[in-house]
Parts: sequence; structure tokens; C-alpha cells
Amino acid sequence: MIPVTEQPRAGDAYGELLRDALAVATGIGPRPLVGGRLPRPVIEIIERDDGLINGAPAAHYLDEPADWQPYDHRAVDRVVGATLDIGTGAGRIALLLQERGVPVTGLDTSLGALRVSRRRGVRDLVHATVDEHVADGRRYDTFLLLGNNLGLIEGRDRAPAFLAALAALARPGAQVIAHGTDPYGTRDPVHTGYHERNRRRGRLGGQLRLRLRYRELATDWFDYLCCSTEELAELVHGSPWQLVDVDDRDAPYYLATLRLTG
Amino acid sequence: MIPVTEQPRAGDAYGELLRDALAVATGIGPRPLVGGRLPRPVIEIIERDDGLINGAPAAHYLDEPADWQPYDHRAVDRVVGATLDIGTGAGRIALLLQERGVPVTGLDTSLGALRVSRRRGVRDLVHATVDEHVADGRRYDTFLLLGNNLGLIEGRDRAPAFLAALAALARPGAQVIAHGTDPYGTRDPVHTGYHERNRRRGRLGGQLRLRLRYRELATDWFDYLCCSTEELAELVHGSPWQLVDVDDRDAPYYLATLRLTG
Repeated sequence: MIPVTEQPRAGDAYGELLRDALAVATGIGPRPLVGGRLPRPVIEIIERDDGLINGAPAAHYLDEPADWQPYDHRAVDRVVGATLDIGTGAGRIALLLQERGVPVTGLDTSLGALRVSRRRGVRDLVHATVDEHVADGRRYDTFLLLGNNLGLIEGRDRAPAFLAALAALARPGAQVIAHGTDPYGTRDPVHTGYHERNRRRGRLGGQLRLRLRYRELATDWFDYLCCSTEELAELVHGSPWQLVDVDDRDAPYYLATLRLTG
Repeated sequence: MIPVTEQPRAGDAYGELLRDALAVATGIGPRPLVGGRLPRPVIEIIERDDGLINGAPAAHYLDEPADWQPYDHRAVDRVVGATLDIGTGAGRIALLLQERGVPVTGLDTSLGALRVSRRRGVRDLVHATVDEHVADGRRYDTFLLLGNNLGLIEGRDRAPAFLAALAALARPGAQVIAHGTDPYGTRDPVHTGYHERNRRRGRLGGQLRLRLRYRELATDWFDYLCCSTEELAELVHGSPWQLVDVDDRDAPYYLATLRLTG
């Protein structure tokens, strides 16, 4: 008899992944094992809604600054004043800023990620979306969207509310420093076909619909945007923000800087 | 609008995975890239029918003998005579045996795997299941089921036919050297619960129902057995084979040796 195939369980796949990655890195706490004995590397699995699936080692979430990509260093060097690290994950960016004496708050929607950040020493953590955090009354000079987290702008539907929430959280003259990826350099038909289907549906080409999977858990499906800097400029147009700088020295990755207008 | 989630495409996920792993290892040929430019490690993704998913770096399929686990060395040292390497994959075992002058044939059901083995220098390759290969008229002294390929025995339904096909391919006094994994050492409820559900359905506890996924491709679902050596002895009982040796020095992994009776 063939058992019925079941779906993964809804849950904090990202938080569990980071917890296990921390256990592997520190040697402390239960770790994923093969056959109950042999260690297994922690792999993050990202599924796209067209059936594409990719795995990537999760250890980079815990990387020390010495192992970072150059754009991450250039991003943190632009930080000024009270800083909100959006999607703080395992806290690698927040930890460096703390060390430099920057007042930094780590924001994440994953409780598991916040637990890992706490255990790694991040002092100021908030469990919320940017929209929810507005009511907390705290205001910032710099917003960081690193680790490709420009993706959180999602697409045309979400961008206005996302940028408005950042503006509501902003002090005068505030900046956003966002790490994005231009997805259009590929000639891989799996990707170019996906971009075309997205556009036919009125979505941006690189508006990925994804879920994370880890062991028996999966997140809900969510939109995550990879866009060109031209598309980003259009999304920002008409918002309280202005795109004032693009650093694309590590193309296809780029750092976009937005400045609060008025 | 939320696009409809699609299923992966049926195809030779394993062969594509090995092709890309070879391209990464040699630097020759198209490789998986991020953003059309940056290399991406090749990760094999294994999905179980209860929603569990795991990723593992694929590079080990190409490992040189110096990087092998100890049980692989002990397995090849037991080889005698004409040898059939069942599930030869990227051919790492067959290549070493060739070098030692052993007459070795690599068997696989993945055309992509056979192409990779061919390019790596394996000379004698067959695209078939063990059952299909019987009609080819070739006979062997040693059958290898390495890389955990004892799993190909699947379970109680498949084992008699699988062992009979090996017997039909065997010369007098032939042996099977099979690498298995005892899955019952774990206390992880995701696994112990799966084992229990399997048993309630009349399956062996570690009779995994799996599919491989790589990028946009997935194999069909198939059974793959992780069993204790006691369960193996029961499966072999009444077949033309006898379980004559178990080497469990690297538990939970073991090497089982079967000998043709009569």
C-alpha cells in the first residue's frame, strides 16, 4: 500500500533552521543527525511556486564580519544614528553595530530567529512587522534591509504600505540601506520563463512567490522581490522616500540608499 | 493575484544534479548560478512522503577515495571477480575498482548519472534495473550496493524479486556487499512517529517513501529501505542468499555480506 503523501506542517521553519545552525556552529544543544548519531549540515530549502526548489547551507546566517561579502561591509559603514535592522535573523549585522556603539534594534517576524539573536548577544529585539512596530512609538535614523531583504518590499501591491510604515518609523532625514538583487542577468529558461509568466499576471518579473522549508516545517507562501534598480525607482516614486544612491559594484547585487523627503 | 502553485516537473533529477556537481568540481560546462553570475553549491533535496525535507551537498558523489568513509574502503576491499556496481551514480566506486584491474560494470537507471560516469572514465556502463539486466546474459561474482543502496531492496514486497534478480545474475559462490543504515537509534519524534505509522500500514519501520528534487525536477516517489540487520536477515530468509557477515563498526551504518547458497 502506498501511503498518502502529506504536506509539510506550517511553522517557524526559519527559526528552527537558525536554531539548528547555531547548535552546529557552537556544538551546544541538539543538532540534526543522520541515524541518530552523525551530524548533518543545516540546509535552508527555498521552494518557488513554479516547482523550482533550491537548497543552500545555512551557516552564512552566523558568519563573522571577516566572512561577509564586501557589500555588507559597505552597508554597515553607511549606518548613522538609531538603527532598525529589519529581518535581523541570527543577528550578525546587529551584533557588529552593537560592538561599534550604534543603538540598534533587531526586528523579525520569526520568534525562533529572535531567540537565536538573543542567545548570540543582541540586546534590543522586537517581534513584529514594520507596520506593527509603528505603534511602539520608537523612531529611527537608519533602516537596514540586508541579506537581500529589499525583497520584503514584495511588489507593486505591498510597496506603498511598506515604504509608508518605514516613513512612520523615521526621524527627519532618515535613510534606508537596502540590499537587492537584479534577477534579469540570467538566460536560464527556468528563470526567464518565470519572469515572463509573472509579467503576464501583472506582477514584476522577479516577484518571487516562495516558501521556506526546513525538516517537517514550511512557512506560508510569501512574495519576495528581486528587481532591477529601475523597477525599484518606480516603486519608490510617489512614496515619502527618494532613491538617492545605488552601489552596484557587486552586481547582480546592489545597495540602494533611500532618503526621507521633506 | 496569487499564482497557482505548480508541481515540479517529472525528470532525471538525480542525473541533472550529478551533471551540475561535476561541472562545479571541474569548472567545465554550465553551472548553477545566482543572479546569472555567482556560483551556487549543488544541493540534493530529498523529500519524504510525510512532508519532511532534507538537503545535502552533492559533492560527496564525486569524492576521491581519500575522502571516503572507512566502510567504503572496507567494502571495496571485499570485492572478488566480475563486479556489478548497482546504482553506480557518478562512478566513484567503479573508478577505483577499474584502477585496481577489477572487471566492473556500473548499473544505473539514471541516464544522466551514466553520462557523468562515462565522462569521468567508467568504461562499462549499463542503463537498466537489475531485473532488466538479467536478459543481457552477463554474470557476476560480486554485487555492490554502496552509498546506502541496500535501500533498493525497498521492503517486504520488493525484496524477493530483487534478491532473485541478483541470484539470476550471479555466478556460483557470488556475494552481495551492501551498505545499509539502521534507522532506529533516533529519538526524534519526526522519525519515530514515521516508523510507527509505517508499521501500522504493514510496512517496515524504516521503509522510506522518497523522491529526489533538483531545481525544477523531481523523480517519482519510490520506496527506499533503512532497516536493522535483524530485519535484513528476515528479508533474506527464504531467498537464494544467506546473510553471512555484518560489519557494524561505523554504526548506524553497516556492511552486510550475502552469499549465494547451493
